[in-house]
Amino acid sequence: MKIMKKLQFASDYQEGAHPNIINRLVQTNMDQTPGYGTDAICASARKRIQEACQCDASVYFLSGGTQTNATIIGAILSSYQGVIAPTSGHVSVHEAGAIEFGGHKVLPIPSTLGKITAQQIEQYMQDFEHDLNHEHMVMPGMVYLSQPTEYGTLYSKAELSAIYSVCKKYSMPLYIDGARLAYALASQQNDISLPELAQLCDIFYIGGTKCGALIGEAVVMPNPHLIPHFFTIMKQNGALLAKGRLLGIQFDELFKDNLYMHIGDTAIQYAQKITQTLKENGYPLYLETVTNQIFFYVNQPLLDRLSENVDLSFWEKADETHSIVRIATSWATQAKDVDALCKLLKEAKQNLM
Amino acid sequence: MKIMKKLQFASDYQEGAHPNIINRLVQTNMDQTPGYGTDAICASARKRIQEACQCDASVYFLSGGTQTNATIIGAILSSYQGVIAPTSGHVSVHEAGAIEFGGHKVLPIPSTLGKITAQQIEQYMQDFEHDLNHEHMVMPGMVYLSQPTEYGTLYSKAELSAIYSVCKKYSMPLYIDGARLAYALASQQNDISLPELAQLCDIFYIGGTKCGALIGEAVVMPNPHLIPHFFTIMKQNGALLAKGRLLGIQFDELFKDNLYMHIGDTAIQYAQKITQTLKENGYPLYLETVTNQIFFYVNQPLLDRLSENVDLSFWEKADETHSIVRIATSWATQAKDVDALCKLLKEAKQNLM
Amino acid sequence: MKIMKKLQFASDYQEGAHPNIINRLVQTNMDQTPGYGTDAICASARKRIQEACQCDASVYFLSGGTQTNATIIGAILSSYQGVIAPTSGHVSVHEAGAIEFGGHKVLPIPSTLGKITAQQIEQYMQDFEHDLNHEHMVMPGMVYLSQPTEYGTLYSKAELSAIYSVCKKYSMPLYIDGARLAYALASQQNDISLPELAQLCDIFYIGGTKCGALIGEAVVMPNPHLIPHFFTIMKQNGALLAKGRLLGIQFDELFKDNLYMHIGDTAIQYAQKITQTLKENGYPLYLETVTNQIFFYVNQPLLDRLSENVDLSFWEKADETHSIVRIATSWATQAKDVDALCKLLKEAKQNLM
Amino acid sequence: MKIMKKLQFASDYQEGAHPNIINRLVQTNMDQTPGYGTDAICASARKRIQEACQCDASVYFLSGGTQTNATIIGAILSSYQGVIAPTSGHVSVHEAGAIEFGGHKVLPIPSTLGKITAQQIEQYMQDFEHDLNHEHMVMPGMVYLSQPTEYGTLYSKAELSAIYSVCKKYSMPLYIDGARLAYALASQQNDISLPELAQLCDIFYIGGTKCGALIGEAVVMPNPHLIPHFFTIMKQNGALLAKGRLLGIQFDELFKDNLYMHIGDTAIQYAQKITQTLKENGYPLYLETVTNQIFFYVNQPLLDRLSENVDLSFWEKADETHSIVRIATSWATQAKDVDALCKLLKEAKQNLM
Repeated sequence: MKIMKKLQFASDYQEGAHPNIINRLVQTNMDQTPGYGTDAICASARKRIQEACQCDASVYFLSGGTQTNATIIGAILSSYQGVIAPTSGHVSVHEAGAIEFGGHKVLPIPSTLGKITAQQIEQYMQDFEHDLNHEHMVMPGMVYLSQPTEYGTLYSKAELSAIYSVCKKYSMPLYIDGARLAYALASQQNDISLPELAQLCDIFYIGGTKCGALIGEAVVMPNPHLIPHFFTIMKQNGALLAKGRLLGIQFDELFKDNLYMHIGDTAIQYAQKITQTLKENGYPLYLETVTNQIFFYVNQPLLDRLSENVDLSFWEKADETHSIVRIATSWATQAKDVDALCKLLKEAKQNLM
Repeated sequence: MKIMKKLQFASDYQEGAHPNIINRLVQTNMDQTPGYGTDAICASARKRIQEACQCDASVYFLSGGTQTNATIIGAILSSYQGVIAPTSGHVSVHEAGAIEFGGHKVLPIPSTLGKITAQQIEQYMQDFEHDLNHEHMVMPGMVYLSQPTEYGTLYSKAELSAIYSVCKKYSMPLYIDGARLAYALASQQNDISLPELAQLCDIFYIGGTKCGALIGEAVVMPNPHLIPHFFTIMKQNGALLAKGRLLGIQFDELFKDNLYMHIGDTAIQYAQKITQTLKENGYPLYLETVTNQIFFYVNQPLLDRLSENVDLSFWEKADETHSIVRIATSWATQAKDVDALCKLLKEAKQNLM
Repeated sequence: MKIMKKLQFASDYQEGAHPNIINRLVQTNMDQTPGYGTDAICASARKRIQEACQCDASVYFLSGGTQTNATIIGAILSSYQGVIAPTSGHVSVHEAGAIEFGGHKVLPIPSTLGKITAQQIEQYMQDFEHDLNHEHMVMPGMVYLSQPTEYGTLYSKAELSAIYSVCKKYSMPLYIDGARLAYALASQQNDISLPELAQLCDIFYIGGTKCGALIGEAVVMPNPHLIPHFFTIMKQNGALLAKGRLLGIQFDELFKDNLYMHIGDTAIQYAQKITQTLKENGYPLYLETVTNQIFFYVNQPLLDRLSENVDLSFWEKADETHSIVRIATSWATQAKDVDALCKLLKEAKQNLM
Repeated sequence: MKIMKKLQFASDYQEGAHPNIINRLVQTNMDQTPGYGTDAICASARKRIQEACQCDASVYFLSGGTQTNATIIGAILSSYQGVIAPTSGHVSVHEAGAIEFGGHKVLPIPSTLGKITAQQIEQYMQDFEHDLNHEHMVMPGMVYLSQPTEYGTLYSKAELSAIYSVCKKYSMPLYIDGARLAYALASQQNDISLPELAQLCDIFYIGGTKCGALIGEAVVMPNPHLIPHFFTIMKQNGALLAKGRLLGIQFDELFKDNLYMHIGDTAIQYAQKITQTLKENGYPLYLETVTNQIFFYVNQPLLDRLSENVDLSFWEKADETHSIVRIATSWATQAKDVDALCKLLKEAKQNLM
C-alpha cells in the first residue's frame, strides 16, 4: 500500500515502529497479561530504563507528549503555581491549552532558537520576588524545557547544570520534555548522557512516538517518590491504558541492547548530509543543524518547486519574499530518499538561479 | 513467553489484538502517513464505521475508555451542568474522578444490575425542576449509560427508546459507553442493532480495547455537528495521538467484512457454556448471563479452591460467608481453557460438598 | 421602607447586621487603610479571634459560605483526592457543584439528620483501602462536616473527638463548616466551646453572614501553616476583597466583648418557645430543636393557612398529605414576631381541627 | 481612629463608601429581605442601571474585580478557547492565575500604555487562522479590555468601535472591565457615554469598589440572554452573596440621581491639579493624565523624600537611577490632602535640586 508519492520529510512520526517492536507484538500477541502496566513486560521495560539511566527511578508509560506534559505538570504544581517555559516550548504553543485546561498558567520566558538560560530564569525569579504585587501573581512552581528543543537545538551539560542550580535554589522541580531525546543522544554535539540527564533534572520523559515506537513516552523520576499516587493521577488524566503492555513492549524493545542509544544515528547522519547539500547549494540555514531537524530559508519560487516533490514543513514567514522551512529526518528515513532529496535540492537551486 | 500459568478469566483485555490487526500493523509498518488521524487508513476506518452505523456520523478515535468518557462529557456539558449516571456506572466509580477533574459532578441514579430506567430519569428531572433551590444545584445536562453495563446486562430497544425520549424531552444529550459493545452485538438477548443504536442516542463509542483491538475506542456522533472543534478538544485532553493511524488500523480491520459484528460470538458461547456448568453444579448466579460477564456466588472454601487454578475477579462480599465473583470471557478466549474451567468448577463443587 | 408584610421566618440571613457593625462602618468610613486585609482593623479582628479560640491560629476573612468551602477544599486536596461529606452537606447539594468545578469529587456518606459518625468514616476508609480497584477510584483526602448541621443538629464533643481520631488515623484533615456556629455556641445542648473546636479539627470557619454580620466568614487554621500561600489562593478564587476591612469590621465587632458567644442567645430562646408552642398544639416535630432551626410536619391545609401570614421554608414532602417545613430564628428575630407566630400556629391548628 | 499619618495616594480603594451608601445601610439595616439578590433593593438598582445604560440589559452584582472577570470569562468561553487581553491587562498579570484556574489561557497582545488596537486583534486573528497548526492551539474566543486601562488611559469611541467591529467579524464577544469606569465617565478626554458603552461591547462591568462603593461590581449584559444560567454560574464560582442586598444598596445609591456619572469629578480635578504641579516643577510624566491615575518619573533621592510623607505606588524601575511611580486620587480624596501633596511635590523638588 503506497499512501503518498512525494518524498516525506515533514515530520518524524510518519512511519510505524522499529521492526523489533512489531516483531515483539507478533510474538506476544496471545500472551495473557494483567492490565494497566502491571505486567511482566512493563516491569522488564522499567528495569531496562533504570539500568540505562543508572538510577533507581520510577518509570511510567504514557501515550503521547501533550498527555505526558499535562499530566506531569498538573501533578507537580500547586493550584497557585505556574510553569516557566520557553516562549517556543511545546506546552506554550502547540498543546491547545492543555496546561491551562488543567488550571495552570504557562509563564513564558523569551527563547532563542528554542532555548532559555539559567540567567533568564534567575532574573525571572528575582523580578517575581521583588514585585510588590507578587502575592497577586502566579507563582513560578517548576521549569519546563525540551531536549532537543522544538528547534532541534541542544542544551549543553554546562547550560543544563546552571539551569538546574537555579531551579534547586528556588525549589522548583525541573522537567525535561524528551519527545526527540533519541536524536539528542545520537548527536555529535550532545555532551549529556542518559545517566547524566537523570542527575540534571527532577523528571523527564524519554520520547517513544518520534523515536522508533508505535506509541508511547516513558516518564522517568530519578527520585521515585517525587509524585505520590502517579498511577491514580494517570488514570484521572485518561492516561492509563488498560492494555499497558502495548507501551511496555515499545520500551522493552527500545532499551534492549542499547537500541535507543543508537536508533537516531542514521537520522543524524542524513540530517548532516542534507545540511551539507543545503550549504553547498547556497540555501541559508536558519540555524546550525545538530539533531534531526533542519531549518533553512527559501524564497517562494524555490518553495513551490520543492513542494512539488517533497513534503516539508512550512515554519514561518521570514520576510516578504522568504520563508523558513523545516526538514525532519527520523530513525526510519531511507538512504535512497535522502539521496533523492539532496538531488532535488541541488537541481531546484540551479534551475531557479 | 508464558506470563501466567493459571486459567485467565479475570478480564477481557488480557491478550493483544485480533490477528488481522497485527497483520495490518506488519504490512503497513513502513508506510508513510500524515499524523493526528488525518491519514487514509483513519479515513477508511471512519467510512466503514459510518456504513456499519448507516449514518453520516462524525467518527473520532481515542485511546481508552476513561479518556473517551472524560473528553466527551467535558465537551458536551456547560460548566454548571453535571452528568446523570447509574451509581454503578464506570464514570461514577472507577475513573479516579476524571469527570470531576474536568469540573463536572456525576449525578448518580441508583442502578439495578447496572441499569437505570426512563422513569427514574424522568423523576430525577421532575424533582430537580420542582426543587425550590434548584438554581443552587448542579443542573443535569446529559445522561451517561453503558451498553452492555458494567454488570454485563443489556438495555432493550424499548428501554433505550424510553430513556432517549426522556432525554430529548429535557434537551439532554444521551451518551452511551460501548466499551464492550461487541459483546452486546453478539448476544442473543440483544435487540438493538448498530444502526438502531445510532438512532437511539446522541453520541456513543464503539469499544476497541476490550473487543479485539490492541488499543482504541471509536466515538460516533450521528449528528456530525454535535461537538464543534472536537479535534482541538481531543488535543487539549491529551487524547490526540501523533501516530493516529495506529487507531485507524484497529477499526479499519475491526469493521472490515463485518468482523466487529461477530468478534464477540465465541465469547458469548463460552459464557453460556460456563453459565450452564455453574447452574448444573449448583453455583447460584448473581444475575442472568447475557453477554460475556458471569457473576455468581461462592463461599470462601470454594473461592480458595478455584483461585488456585483460575484468575477470576472478586466483585464484592455478599454476606459473611459468601462473595460475588466475576468470570469474563473475551474474543480471545480459547475452547480448551473453557473446558478446563468447566471441569474445575465441577470438581471443586463436588469435592467441597 | 417596608419590604415585606408577612412574618419572616424563612431563613437567618434576611436582615442586615448587628448594630455595632453598622456603627463601626459609620465611624470608620473615611479612615484610610491599605487593601486586601492587610489593615489594622483586620489585624485586630484576627487577634480577637485567636484569643477567643485560645490558639495562635491563622485567620482569613472571606465573603460567603460556598466561596469559603470551595477555596478551602480546593486548597487542601491533591488533584486525585475527594472530600468525604454527609449526603445532606451543603457542599454535597447546594453549592451548584462548586467543589467539582474546582476538580474534586464530593464523596457522600449517608447522613442521619445531617450527621455522620466516626464509625461510618472508619468503614468508608476500610472499604476504600480493601477495594482491589482503589487506585482507580477517588482517594478520600479530607472530611467536611457542619456544626450545626444543615438540620440544626449538633455533634457532641464525644462524637467530634471520635471523628477527629479517625481523620488523624487516616491523615485526613477535618474541616468544619460553621456557617451557623453562633447558634451552636448559644445552644444548651452544645458541649463544644470555641477553644475546644479549634482542638478538634484542622480548619473551620466561623460564620458571619448568618450570625450577625453583613457579610463574611472567618477561616481559622489552628495550625497556621496548614495551607501555604492561602492569600494567593484566595486571590485566585476571587475571594480576596480589595476593601478587606469591610470583613475585618464585621469580625472585630463580633468578637469584641464576647458578642459572638451570645449573639445567638435570643434566637435559641425563641426557637425553644416556638418548639414548645408546636408541641403544645400537636404539630409533630421532624427532629428535636437544639439550635435555631425548627423542622416539623404540616398537612396541606395547615401549610396553606400558615403561608398566608408567615414566610417559612418548605423542606420536603413527607408523604402524600404531609410536608416537612422549616422555621428559622436568628440573632435579629424580634419577640413580637415570635409572639405573633406562636399565636398563629395555635389558631391555625385549632381552626383546622 | 487614625490608621495612618502619611498622605494617602497609593490607591483608590482606601476609604469606605460614599455617605449615601452608609446612610442607606443604616436606614435599611433591620428590613427583612429575601436572599441572593432577589430582593426589591437589588431590583431597583438593576432598574436604575438599565435606565442609565438606556437598554434592557441583564444586570448582576458581584463582589470584586477578579471574581467578576473569572466568572464572566469562564462563562463565555468554551473549554478550547482563550481570552485575548493586553499584556498589561489585569487578567494577564494580577489575578493570580484566576483565568487559568478556570481552565482558560490568557492570550496576551502587547499593549501600549495599557491599550491594544483593532489592528492588532485583526492581525492576531489572521495569524491564528493562517497558522497551519491552529487546531493544535488555543482558539481566541473573546476579547478583554479595561476602560480606563490599568494605566488610566482611555479608549476613544473610534478606537472602541473599531475593536468591536473586529470582534463581531470573528464572532468573539467583547468584554470590558470597568473597575474604574466612574473615572472614565468623569474625564474630559472621554467621548464614550454609558449608553454608548453598552452598544460597543457584549458585556461589561461597572466598577463599584474603586468608585464609591464599599464592595461590589455590576455586570451589565446588553443582550440579556448572553449567558444562560448566570445565577447558577455565580453560585458555582462562589460569587453569589446570601445577603445580596448589600450589593444592591451600593448600586441603588450610586445610580440614584446620576451620582455615578459625577462621583469621579473631584478625583479628576485633583488629578489634573497634581499633574499641573508635577509639570510646573519639572517632574517628567510617564504618560498624559486623563483619569485618576498619575504616572511620573522620580530619582531615588526624590522618591525617598516623598515617601517620608506620602504613600504612593512604586510602579517599576525606569532605569538605574529612576523609577516610575503612581499617584491615584479617588472620589474620597480631600482638597486639603491634595494641597499638602502639591506643596510637598514642589518643596521636595526644590530642596533636591
